[in-house]
Amino acid sequence: MEKVQKPLILVTNDDGYFAPGLHNLIDMVKPYGEVLVVAPEVGVSGMSHAITIKTPLRLTLLEKTNGVTFYKLNGTPVDCVKMAINQLVDRKPDILVSGINHGSNSSISVIYSGTMGGAIEGSLNKIPSIGFSLCSHRMDADFSLTKKYSEGIFLQVLKNGLPDYTCLNVNFPVIDESSFKGIKVCRQARGVWKEEYEKRVDPHGGEYYWLTGNFKNNENGSTDTDEWALDHNYASIVPVRTDFTDHENLKKLENLTVMYHESFYK
Amino acid sequence: MEKVQKPLILVTNDDGYFAPGLHNLIDMVKPYGEVLVVAPEVGVSGMSHAITIKTPLRLTLLEKTNGVTFYKLNGTPVDCVKMAINQLVDRKPDILVSGINHGSNSSISVIYSGTMGGAIEGSLNKIPSIGFSLCSHRMDADFSLTKKYSEGIFLQVLKNGLPDYTCLNVNFPVIDESSFKGIKVCRQARGVWKEEYEKRVDPHGGEYYWLTGNFKNNENGSTDTDEWALDHNYASIVPVRTDFTDHENLKKLENLTVMYHESFYK
Repeated sequence: MEKVQKPLILVTNDDGYFAPGLHNLIDMVKPYGEVLVVAPEVGVSGMSHAITIKTPLRLTLLEKTNGVTFYKLNGTPVDCVKMAINQLVDRKPDILVSGINHGSNSSISVIYSGTMGGAIEGSLNKIPSIGFSLCSHRMDADFSLTKKYSEGIFLQVLKNGLPDYTCLNVNFPVIDESSFKGIKVCRQARGVWKEEYEKRVDPHGGEYYWLTGNFKNNENGSTDTDEWALDHNYASIVPVRTDFTDHENLKKLENLTVMYHESFYK
Repeated sequence: MEKVQKPLILVTNDDGYFAPGLHNLIDMVKPYGEVLVVAPEVGVSGMSHAITIKTPLRLTLLEKTNGVTFYKLNGTPVDCVKMAINQLVDRKPDILVSGINHGSNSSISVIYSGTMGGAIEGSLNKIPSIGFSLCSHRMDADFSLTKKYSEGIFLQVLKNGLPDYTCLNVNFPVIDESSFKGIKVCRQARGVWKEEYEKRVDPHGGEYYWLTGNFKNNENGSTDTDEWALDHNYASIVPVRTDFTDHENLKKLENLTVMYHESFYK
């Protein structure tokens, strides 16, 4: 009788290989297959889809036991995914999970998120990929509800896959299970980070800045967004795609093809 | 008589404040308004939409003359744009230009691109924003054609604006003007970088990796993509949006909302 191969599960995150969110995620997926973890050596939140081109990448095996192979890499989540699928596996992973992030990646935060960078990179390689986040930055956050309901989402995707090039951005509210309403598939809320910079002076007299900011929701009460879901005690799932084309405005912008005319500059 | 304010033009790039592509862009826009440049201190290609959270940002004024104020910042293009609009201006920029990048940002490269990260950040703040790239990585590339035709695109956007939250990803082929066919507004080609890693050993015996790779176009000869345009001697303009939602598959994925059932795990 032919031996059935266990699913190959690729795991990454952006908070670093030591983050509790990552270890909760590993615990959650471990029963379902062979697990390969490649996680950043340090916290690299806000690294988006960045790749490391100008510095050498160093890969360190931390652990290889009991169905879990665990590496750290001095790179971004996207580097971790690329390294895993190009150097470390002999077959395509069946699923990729990224997180569980310490902090929200809803609305426009998806674009800054290293957690989602990792998940999106998986989807570019047609691996069904999910980024999980809990809306708390605390290192001692309680992941139990997130872990429990993420498992259901994970198993559905493992079983049914996802459309090619689409991944999931899953966010959980910080909430007791008794108040939890369930999961909503929704769209990314329109919003923006309103930034400020805190200016300081170092002990040597040099000025420097820290990025700070507040999220501003630009929706007018629409109930089909991730922000609405999270505010109303739901977990949100936004299917994320990698075609950045603004198809809606493609036709409208065709006038931009007019060629260079001297007269235009007068 | 009231004095009419000149347009405020914000300029950034990802190849660094010293890059010829940036200086070509500054020269091109300078006649049309007051120019504020905030550019990275070092080359930060591949930084995508990354932001700097964990290290202090240092801003250095390099030049303030003749309608051009020029800063360098030890951050990413997105940091440069945030710093500019939150710390350095007393009015909203009328337009943002990023580049001219040394190298293509067509197809899926848009997601890795720091040049486009800067442009997208502008569009998030409702500033009409354009990323310009020339498909050559050479530092001594000839920017004359790119500069000439970019000027026409720049002036149209300065005059007419862009839809809110939409920016432009403009790429120029490396070509003589006699062969140049013009400009095409098109969609992002479906494609992926097929990565490899070159493994080396340092003089101290430590192993490290360099990212390398080749672009793979996944289109079947469609003529409405940026890759097709560039391959056929056109410059490409892809309107880029920041809603990552996969609207096409939103409905299809609603089954993911099923709640946790013990039976599912049996």
